[in-house]
Amino acid sequence: MGTRIDWLNDPEAPPANSIVPSANVIVVNDQGEILMIQRSDNGNWAVPGGGMDLGESMPGCAIRETKEETGYDVEITGLVGIYTDPNHRIEYTSDGEVRQEFSIVFTARPLAGEPTPNPEALNVDWFSPEQLAELKIHDTMRKRIQQYIDGGGQPYLG
Amino acid sequence: MGTRIDWLNDPEAPPANSIVPSANVIVVNDQGEILMIQRSDNGNWAVPGGGMDLGESMPGCAIRETKEETGYDVEITGLVGIYTDPNHRIEYTSDGEVRQEFSIVFTARPLAGEPTPNPEALNVDWFSPEQLAELKIHDTMRKRIQQYIDGGGQPYLG
Repeated sequence: MGTRIDWLNDPEAPPANSIVPSANVIVVNDQGEILMIQRSDNGNWAVPGGGMDLGESMPGCAIRETKEETGYDVEITGLVGIYTDPNHRIEYTSDGEVRQEFSIVFTARPLAGEPTPNPEALNVDWFSPEQLAELKIHDTMRKRIQQYIDGGGQPYLG
Repeated sequence: MGTRIDWLNDPEAPPANSIVPSANVIVVNDQGEILMIQRSDNGNWAVPGGGMDLGESMPGCAIRETKEETGYDVEITGLVGIYTDPNHRIEYTSDGEVRQEFSIVFTARPLAGEPTPNPEALNVDWFSPEQLAELKIHDTMRKRIQQYIDGGGQPYLG
């Protein structure tokens, strides 16, 4: 399996050659804990998410990816923001694809399921906002989660 | 020039073969009027917008497309919603591309400029919400504008 490399504001970053609209989902339970996965491609912790397929909507993508990567059925409850910084690029070493960041970050609540590791997630678990500080999380992912935690009412538009 | 055909919930619609993230911009002036263009490809009236290029952000795309299609420099002020219904497809007869709907609809205010027709817009003008009823506007575009007019606080997520 290839590696995923996040490039952020780095003049050495390879130029982007693709845009793939993706969803990320901040699933929050009744205790205020957030559902996290440990990515199998780089070992970082992240919220579930992935690229949109032909034939589905963006909320549909968010629900499908969450199910695949965590084992949970969820209901979308809101929007944290839109993250499309061209100076954040994701390189996939397996095939040379360099995606420019394009993530729509939703909030959701769990309907059914239990943490289920899978090919994309070595571990799946719930963490309180305070516990997230101890996890290895890429800066760009931590920013999205922190903006959910900070709230503010208006979605982030970047 | 080819034609743009909007297909909505039509079993005869061709299957989608591309997803192009696009912005639409509802530019509102101090009088509450909305900046509209009459599209050169199908004669319908619409708010400005278009597909995102490599190297720009989604808000950057919104600002660039508005400038190109209307002559106005604008500042983004908010989000109306996300429109990604796979049963709304846009066929371009010139090359057979069939895009699945993917529009992020922003609000904006004008900073400078004047209505400037261009290759993509036969006419550019301001209309009050009431005046929009008289214009030929595709249902999918009218829905986006109406959701801005109706407000409601939470962005549409579809």
